[in-house]
Amino acid sequence: MRVLGVDPGLTRCGLGVVEGLPGRRLRMVAVGVVRTPPEDEPHERLLSVQTEIDQWIADWAPDAIAVERIFAKANIKGIMGTAQASAVPMLAAARLGLPLAMHTPSEIKAAVTGNGRADKAQVGHMVTRILGLEEAPRPADAADALALAICHLWRGGYDARVDQAGAPGGRTNRLQAAEQAAGQAGSNRLAELHAQHRTAQRAAAARASGRSGVRPVTTRRIVP
Amino acid sequence: MRVLGVDPGLTRCGLGVVEGLPGRRLRMVAVGVVRTPPEDEPHERLLSVQTEIDQWIADWAPDAIAVERIFAKANIKGIMGTAQASAVPMLAAARLGLPLAMHTPSEIKAAVTGNGRADKAQVGHMVTRILGLEEAPRPADAADALALAICHLWRGGYDARVDQAGAPGGRTNRLQAAEQAAGQAGSNRLAELHAQHRTAQRAAAARASGRSGVRPVTTRRIVP
Repeated sequence: MRVLGVDPGLTRCGLGVVEGLPGRRLRMVAVGVVRTPPEDEPHERLLSVQTEIDQWIADWAPDAIAVERIFAKANIKGIMGTAQASAVPMLAAARLGLPLAMHTPSEIKAAVTGNGRADKAQVGHMVTRILGLEEAPRPADAADALALAICHLWRGGYDARVDQAGAPGGRTNRLQAAEQAAGQAGSNRLAELHAQHRTAQRAAAARASGRSGVRPVTTRRIVP
Repeated sequence: MRVLGVDPGLTRCGLGVVEGLPGRRLRMVAVGVVRTPPEDEPHERLLSVQTEIDQWIADWAPDAIAVERIFAKANIKGIMGTAQASAVPMLAAARLGLPLAMHTPSEIKAAVTGNGRADKAQVGHMVTRILGLEEAPRPADAADALALAICHLWRGGYDARVDQAGAPGGRTNRLQAAEQAAGQAGSNRLAELHAQHRTAQRAAAARASGRSGVRPVTTRRIVP
């Protein structure tokens, strides 16, 4: 399974492709950063990011896309550009019918380092170790994109294994195993994993039934 | 000149097409709202909005797109979806090389009602009068989209006329005329209009020179 991780942004958008299976060694396929010039108009910058992400998807054919879930911080102006940039991989996934997951920064940090409050250096260090790299990917956005992909493979791996297992008993064991693997525990996480699983099942059912999942309702009035 | 106004959102995305020239009577071409079901995944909802906006652009062939500029409010969760939805018309404009403008809520209200703090009812009332409609468009998102298009035509009209006029003296007179037309005055607005003008000129120059304006800078490292 191959995952494209996207750490969204207009100034720097981190991209990382990681391949592997849960419980197996993971392999980095590609890593990079899309930078767009601040002097360009925001919509031109968005298109630049889209052009590049589309190219990455064409080049590396990921099975899934993982995007960092954005929260509001002090820098509201920056957050708007980041939120808009996050729409790009979301749209790509929806258009291509690729599974999409949004992971929070603390989920990513917990999955990679075992600590939801780890700093950039710790994340970079663990990404380097997990992927067997010679040095930490730079800038931090690139390392974050790889961490996202790793997080998704390890968390997504749970769903893949459950789908194969099927039995309710096996499911609970595998949930616990997944929690341990991600270095996190507790009923909140369990509820999250359950919710994720239901979402994945719904998406899979929708894909299997040939339904697009796209159901816009539009009212339109025209005065000639 | 025909303008597509977009009041972005996932639950309701207002769309309005208005045709006209500065100083002339404006005409409503189309108005509507895209609604996407909250039970759909956010990325599916974004794609629904994109599919619909692309269809509107194909159907109505606007010369420009105007999008409401989003600011952070109390409802941070809602604002993220709105910011992501705003990326859709921005990407469309960039992709198609259509001029794009972002107008703030107070600019829109000031342009339509003469008061930057007007309420929804006042905006709906003035939109109805300006476009000679029999009743106010509902829901408010639809009226807001029309207000955006009107705002853009009146503000953008300034640029169009200046481009034709050229002379510095005429430019100042027309700036003042545009300010009066939009029911606003003051040096802030003048500076804004100047900035808008420069942006429009730059975009026009870029289009004329065949330059796309898209200059992504990407670093990519691949480990085979």
